[in-house]
Amino acid sequence: MARVVEFTRYGEPEVLQFKEIPPPVPGPNEVRIRVKAIGLNRAESMWRKGAYVEEVRLPARLGYESSGIVEAVGESVTHVAVGDAVSTVPSFSLNDYGMYGDQVLAPAHAVVKKHESLSFAEAVAVWNPYITPYGAMIEPGLLSASDVVLIPAASSSVGLGTIQLVNMMGATSIALTRTSAKREQLLAAGAQHVIATEEQDLVAEVMRITDNKGATLAFDPVGGSTLAKLISALAPGGHIFLYGALSEEPTELPILDMIAKKPNIHGYNLFGTTTDATLQKAAVEFIHAGLASGKLKPLIEKTFAFDDIVEAHRYLEKSQHLGRIVVTVD
Amino acid sequence: MARVVEFTRYGEPEVLQFKEIPPPVPGPNEVRIRVKAIGLNRAESMWRKGAYVEEVRLPARLGYESSGIVEAVGESVTHVAVGDAVSTVPSFSLNDYGMYGDQVLAPAHAVVKKHESLSFAEAVAVWNPYITPYGAMIEPGLLSASDVVLIPAASSSVGLGTIQLVNMMGATSIALTRTSAKREQLLAAGAQHVIATEEQDLVAEVMRITDNKGATLAFDPVGGSTLAKLISALAPGGHIFLYGALSEEPTELPILDMIAKKPNIHGYNLFGTTTDATLQKAAVEFIHAGLASGKLKPLIEKTFAFDDIVEAHRYLEKSQHLGRIVVTVD
Repeated sequence: MARVVEFTRYGEPEVLQFKEIPPPVPGPNEVRIRVKAIGLNRAESMWRKGAYVEEVRLPARLGYESSGIVEAVGESVTHVAVGDAVSTVPSFSLNDYGMYGDQVLAPAHAVVKKHESLSFAEAVAVWNPYITPYGAMIEPGLLSASDVVLIPAASSSVGLGTIQLVNMMGATSIALTRTSAKREQLLAAGAQHVIATEEQDLVAEVMRITDNKGATLAFDPVGGSTLAKLISALAPGGHIFLYGALSEEPTELPILDMIAKKPNIHGYNLFGTTTDATLQKAAVEFIHAGLASGKLKPLIEKTFAFDDIVEAHRYLEKSQHLGRIVVTVD
Repeated sequence: MARVVEFTRYGEPEVLQFKEIPPPVPGPNEVRIRVKAIGLNRAESMWRKGAYVEEVRLPARLGYESSGIVEAVGESVTHVAVGDAVSTVPSFSLNDYGMYGDQVLAPAHAVVKKHESLSFAEAVAVWNPYITPYGAMIEPGLLSASDVVLIPAASSSVGLGTIQLVNMMGATSIALTRTSAKREQLLAAGAQHVIATEEQDLVAEVMRITDNKGATLAFDPVGGSTLAKLISALAPGGHIFLYGALSEEPTELPILDMIAKKPNIHGYNLFGTTTDATLQKAAVEFIHAGLASGKLKPLIEKTFAFDDIVEAHRYLEKSQHLGRIVVTVD
């Protein structure tokens, strides 16, 4: 029997339950994976609470990223074969597929061969962390060496991925973190500058670092009152990508600043890149090249056993980690 | 003596006072205009209240748009000469120049020859109304025939200018107005669709008009609670330009909608276009071509005498007009 995680009501991590089901049979465009590792995403915690961008159909499965070995493929699948080591790119609805399980189905378009340099645990720490900033800033050609990028929630796995991508492009990375507790770790993780937003004046620090020019880009999963500060810290005509809703405060737009400074605020998610075969391929190749060069290096904070999925979700929500939380499956 | 308008404290229209000064002498890059007409802008009412994007230095002058006859030019000025009929393009700080007067100085870069088809009154009803939407949507190549454009505050002079520009590009104009009082006038002014936002469901109406696709652009001087509705009425990946702050409500960003729908919200003002010589020239030529073809036709709601400037500002702030308010100067 296969063992998967589901929830039948919204709520705290405890709502996650194990369930035994017959090993699922792939449809024509599906792949069954014998899972070795699962990467946890904040989106899955919002999903579990019924507070995600998409409505949850209960009972619900969850999980965007798994890695493992292909166990069976549908008749139309040709790009991977039984026995291949693979991982899944977030490119589907959690109403249709969930990667939290020991044997799971994934849509063929989401399954890519695992890069040889990566362990199974590392292979679930690359897609969301790197494709998210890649699709926003690199795919449209917005990020070049002259850019200065503000990275709120810098110690999240996407934040750390963004630091690495920004550095890889020769641009300047400014990590934003609430307190100085993680300052040294963020510097060690590659941040060129770190600002502790509850201890320092964000705008004054950014202006000091940039010779009063302001930053050109911000990659923000927080929202709330941070947004107005990011706009103040931005150079005229700069860009902010909003890709998460970590703050529970309302996010108020400072209209006069908007008119005077002409910032561009882009709502963003990575699905535009991952669900388009051509764009996904370019993203995967870009990231594989970064991994091969050593400029991208996935950071794993902690691994949990599959049995401890509830505890892993609790840890995810503390937001005190630095890097990806991975669940390993025997 | 020259007669100009100034204010020495912020406040209601009554703070505007006439003052007699010696006719100003142009510096090397300045032009003195014998004013025939002044076009009133909402920005000037915010300026008068000390609630504009730029800090006001008191005592203050005001006015972006005048038309008249060149009376004197500075030594470096070659593109216009004494006796030319001209108008001024908003491209300077009101701390430096103010067009409310019978003899005023303007920076040379702001002075353009009046298009032969326009009266002096019409010549102060073209720059802000047309360059504002032009610089946002046409200059960067965002507006094409397949676009559907939402136009809040459609009866303002910029709103009406936007309707005409959208129609000229072969795109679809949807005028938004609070009540149905101006519906027929807006249709007569060229709006292809009119939605009375206090009487109709904005999102449902836009979805009906667009076959559930949503609008692709919105050109919004309002902000406040309208913004979230505009986002809901937009197609995924659409664009909103925020160029005014007519609403006094806070403007809250609906973060989950932002992430799911990926709208692009651009703070905007026309100075990026008007203060760049090349861009200004292209804008003026585009608008002159539109005037010549008859596709652009400035709309004047009402003219006031210069002596009645206080009353003209009161009328401006009622926001019940349809088109430009012009002050004529003898």
